[in-house]
Amino acid sequence: MSELNLLVGQSGGPTAAINATLAGVIGEAIACSKIGRVYGAVNGIKGVISDNIIDLSDVFSNTDNLRILSQTPSSYLGSCRYRLSENSDDIKKIISVMKKHNIGYFLYIGGNDSMDTVLKLSDACGQEGINVIGVPKTIDNDLMNTDHCPGFGSAAKYIASTVAEISRDAKCYSIESVTIVEIMGRNAGWLTAASALARLNGDTSPELIYLPEIPFDTKIFLDDVKQKVIEKQNIVIAISEGIKDANGKYVSDQSEIFKEDLFGHVQLGGAGKILENLIKNKYGIKVRSVELNTPQRCASHLGSLTDIRESTDIGAAAVNAAVCGNSGKMMIYKRRPGSQYSVSYDYTDISNAANSEKKVPREYINESGNDVTQSFFEYVYPLIQGQPEIIFKHGLPKHIMR
Amino acid sequence: MSELNLLVGQSGGPTAAINATLAGVIGEAIACSKIGRVYGAVNGIKGVISDNIIDLSDVFSNTDNLRILSQTPSSYLGSCRYRLSENSDDIKKIISVMKKHNIGYFLYIGGNDSMDTVLKLSDACGQEGINVIGVPKTIDNDLMNTDHCPGFGSAAKYIASTVAEISRDAKCYSIESVTIVEIMGRNAGWLTAASALARLNGDTSPELIYLPEIPFDTKIFLDDVKQKVIEKQNIVIAISEGIKDANGKYVSDQSEIFKEDLFGHVQLGGAGKILENLIKNKYGIKVRSVELNTPQRCASHLGSLTDIRESTDIGAAAVNAAVCGNSGKMMIYKRRPGSQYSVSYDYTDISNAANSEKKVPREYINESGNDVTQSFFEYVYPLIQGQPEIIFKHGLPKHIMR
Repeated sequence: MSELNLLVGQSGGPTAAINATLAGVIGEAIACSKIGRVYGAVNGIKGVISDNIIDLSDVFSNTDNLRILSQTPSSYLGSCRYRLSENSDDIKKIISVMKKHNIGYFLYIGGNDSMDTVLKLSDACGQEGINVIGVPKTIDNDLMNTDHCPGFGSAAKYIASTVAEISRDAKCYSIESVTIVEIMGRNAGWLTAASALARLNGDTSPELIYLPEIPFDTKIFLDDVKQKVIEKQNIVIAISEGIKDANGKYVSDQSEIFKEDLFGHVQLGGAGKILENLIKNKYGIKVRSVELNTPQRCASHLGSLTDIRESTDIGAAAVNAAVCGNSGKMMIYKRRPGSQYSVSYDYTDISNAANSEKKVPREYINESGNDVTQSFFEYVYPLIQGQPEIIFKHGLPKHIMR
Repeated sequence: MSELNLLVGQSGGPTAAINATLAGVIGEAIACSKIGRVYGAVNGIKGVISDNIIDLSDVFSNTDNLRILSQTPSSYLGSCRYRLSENSDDIKKIISVMKKHNIGYFLYIGGNDSMDTVLKLSDACGQEGINVIGVPKTIDNDLMNTDHCPGFGSAAKYIASTVAEISRDAKCYSIESVTIVEIMGRNAGWLTAASALARLNGDTSPELIYLPEIPFDTKIFLDDVKQKVIEKQNIVIAISEGIKDANGKYVSDQSEIFKEDLFGHVQLGGAGKILENLIKNKYGIKVRSVELNTPQRCASHLGSLTDIRESTDIGAAAVNAAVCGNSGKMMIYKRRPGSQYSVSYDYTDISNAANSEKKVPREYINESGNDVTQSFFEYVYPLIQGQPEIIFKHGLPKHIMR
């Protein structure tokens, strides 16, 4: 019988590190004597269903290409948002395509929804002798049972560096001003919490931090702002896009409620824009809001070396886990005890990981609910350390495309 | 008589390179035997008026500090937006403070408004034997009589790199989609035009580019979008925040006009948000808008080495121009002829530079008004080349603060 081949796919929202994981998978699979060809599914599981499969072995036998892949943001193979239905023909089609290409190992790199796909596939694939392993990625850092998620460290580093730069910018005039930075995270505040790292640059910004984990109270917020402006004149506030009130209603959905405060203008912006207008109308001072937006998940030019290395290594570890006969698992990071930061690579049953969300625990948030604690700082600090050496061409970071 | 001292100030909106110019001024002034102490005016001309002057000679005799200054965004000395009135007591106060500190040379780093300050000061200072020189800075690249402006190259590099990253992100799903990137520039489209450099990365994005120099026509825009989406499926569009219609009315001010198109919602966002909703409502496809916002002018972690070096050197050249007896001048770049890019440093009468705006010339824009030409590409390409080696501390680019 010929050697079994490996198939890899990417799914969900892009990150700056998801291609580093792909590079880790491809590099290890090419080197592994038990694996034949390395194939990629274009646009995730949809590419498997429609037999849109490409050969990766040749392109990435060139290690320069592997290295450029690691610094290319977003999903080289393309992505999808597709929820497998167990009762549909999808799973039959997937098995048939995999058998056609003689796939023995299927690795799926993605977030929460992608782990649901791994969960649904693992039984059917298991019966056909195909080992299925999920490899996590999400800037949101909200997957259970892993110390942190591949992609989070780079996003955290970009956010902290950018908040530090915005703080330099915001504080150049000697007038009272508030700058609101709106950071990704609908339900989990990990990325917004990471903005606290901007203080490593010697500054006190962000002066206030609000996460979705703590019910947002407009009155307390306005009091916090007033006090900090009196104290510091220029302040920077970090908020999660997903901050919500005590009833669980997103601030970004409340433009109707704030209508009077906003002088009758209905505003369809995000939470940052709404709070910008709220402060302006209440205190009449200079307020600006900055939504960090898409660059948070694709600014690979400012990645964390720790994150990129770990993201690569967890991809390689996933190949070995599959070849050693494991299936229905999600790869995880375990932080080793001790003062010197390091992780080991392990796996957990996919059922432990899929369809649940890890929020920022209460002990990482200060008592007033407007800042993080020292223990969060100690958790997040190692994850942004080190800078990958970026290869530039024509003055721009070099990318590789299909 | 004791040696004459040098006073330097910064003014107007921050850039990623304005501190490189300050470093060039300070380094050259410290080395110059004809100059005594080097002083800085806190918050620009307002700091001169109120005698808020600090000594820079000691801190920056440490060349490590000078180097960190070069990579720190925004204005180290603080900035102001203050229009000098010739009839007020301002000029008298300024002269008196300068005489108190035995200032022989006053260098003012800033944009259009700051050059107006230099113009207004140069006569009065000249009578007191104080040489006044303006040093340009503006990401907008809109100052006359200089090939380009210090700070523009770094902003252009950040924008091109970020648009390339956003394009990777935008194209990962196999569905029709439009991503609008809103770029700074109220009246001049230089920065938006520079987004074309993203194509150096091997991609076709941005597929469409709209500048304030060409009247914006909604109907033509919607047709352009339709055609490109049919052709490419996923497209990225770069627009200037300042695009305006044939009557000169900003698109960002037209939410009332577009009210019907926007299903009755009055939208207070920028031009990007308005066009996002326009396309959504017309074609019902996935549209996202990303405002690049403040990072365009403060992302010094991704500066252009060419820009940072030139910005430093033009500061040093300004010191020499002042010491050599020049006054009432603005420093300029002259591009040397020939295929190998280089500039020389010169100056022009301040009256040639102040209070006018350089727009993108018609020959840099394609006939349809929705892209740039090859000759613009040749103009802008050299300005983003090279990467400064950034010093990191604790995982973040290191900054220096007063």
